[in-house]
Amino acid sequence: MIENMIRDGERLDDLQRGGLRILQKTSGFRFGTDAVLLAHFAAPRPKDRVVDLGAGTGVLPLLMSARSTNANFTAIELLPEMADMAARSVALNQLEAQITVLEADLRDAPSLLGYGCADLVVCNPPYSPLGAALPNNDPARALARHEVGCTLAQVIESAGKLLRNGGRLAMVFPAQRLLELLDAQRVARIEPKRVRLVHQRVQDPPKLALLEGVKLARPALHWLPPLILCDESGAYTEETQGIYSD
Amino acid sequence: MIENMIRDGERLDDLQRGGLRILQKTSGFRFGTDAVLLAHFAAPRPKDRVVDLGAGTGVLPLLMSARSTNANFTAIELLPEMADMAARSVALNQLEAQITVLEADLRDAPSLLGYGCADLVVCNPPYSPLGAALPNNDPARALARHEVGCTLAQVIESAGKLLRNGGRLAMVFPAQRLLELLDAQRVARIEPKRVRLVHQRVQDPPKLALLEGVKLARPALHWLPPLILCDESGAYTEETQGIYSD
Repeated sequence: MIENMIRDGERLDDLQRGGLRILQKTSGFRFGTDAVLLAHFAAPRPKDRVVDLGAGTGVLPLLMSARSTNANFTAIELLPEMADMAARSVALNQLEAQITVLEADLRDAPSLLGYGCADLVVCNPPYSPLGAALPNNDPARALARHEVGCTLAQVIESAGKLLRNGGRLAMVFPAQRLLELLDAQRVARIEPKRVRLVHQRVQDPPKLALLEGVKLARPALHWLPPLILCDESGAYTEETQGIYSD
Repeated sequence: MIENMIRDGERLDDLQRGGLRILQKTSGFRFGTDAVLLAHFAAPRPKDRVVDLGAGTGVLPLLMSARSTNANFTAIELLPEMADMAARSVALNQLEAQITVLEADLRDAPSLLGYGCADLVVCNPPYSPLGAALPNNDPARALARHEVGCTLAQVIESAGKLLRNGGRLAMVFPAQRLLELLDAQRVARIEPKRVRLVHQRVQDPPKLALLEGVKLARPALHWLPPLILCDESGAYTEETQGIYSD
């Protein structure tokens, strides 16, 4: 039965969350630490309606569903192959009642789902602007890493339309591009409220920024303590271990 | 001789830099860690012309002069009493050839010193916007802590006029207000280039941000590793000790 749902070139990975599993390509884009960190940072509240813009294999709603059993998730994914894989992962975990996968352009999400419908939007957007480097030949990888499908501004504009006033947008982004992210959120009237920088080790510059913005909130940026992923020996810190088993 | 240069209510403090001393009020505004961190972060290059906007007791040029013996400093201070105290500290250290104290409104600095005259502008501005809390009755403390004399935007506008193209502005500011600082620098066409967050301990949110902007540079923000001031026991970390004896 389960075997029938795994296609050629796919594998079934354990998400280490009470039996949760996810289909991923054996060669191709697979989720990384950033997705695990964002799922933890976003922390949906009970009964939140959550939209994931550019969901890929659906790793964010799958991870978040483990802790937020009362929240409801819609995963928007442009690539038919990825959307199909995400939908099969949802079915494999019997989470169809909690997670809906929608094959669509995220720019169409507000008209498809409704303006102001979301309490929380999450997004792990491409990290490289188009033109920064040659996009990958693999369309899933290219879409995940480069602004091929749409720009950062378009992602956030879509989030702004989806969110109710006071609703939250949680994103992960390279620390180097944090200024662009802050600007883009403010253009969409999503006020940056909570930021956490992620360091590989304590002596390293931050590599990622976790940022939460709130639609139409008053300006006041709250910094969290730095998130240090590894200790001197290269092993996960206690906090990282906690996030991975959260 | 030296005793004659110390007025009532003043004391002479050792700056722990090869005999450097500074006059400060026994009760009143005294320099803190932020000034020491900024002096270290700003790091004038040989032959730099450096302007300190709102110099107070002159602690920044005094500290920077210890390492940057080829740089030249102008300290702008509005309050006659503070400017006089800074000038006497400069004289006490026999640094008149290297540090000039000018009693003036920092908004007048560009017309007094010349547009584009500075390689480096440093500023430890007031941390609280006017109206955030009642300004202190002590005018020196009020001026140092609240935007009584001028706004953040005015300070940075003045810096922008003083700087040559490619010149640097180094500031220390509360991490909570970093967004405002980034915005204000960009309005003055000073591009934020280098940022370092300062944490009391590794598990604390950042309390201060050290920010360097470059006039008319292209956008690219470079994050430095976090600066952790104290270890678990509350003692200065090795790096903090190094900065204090730098």
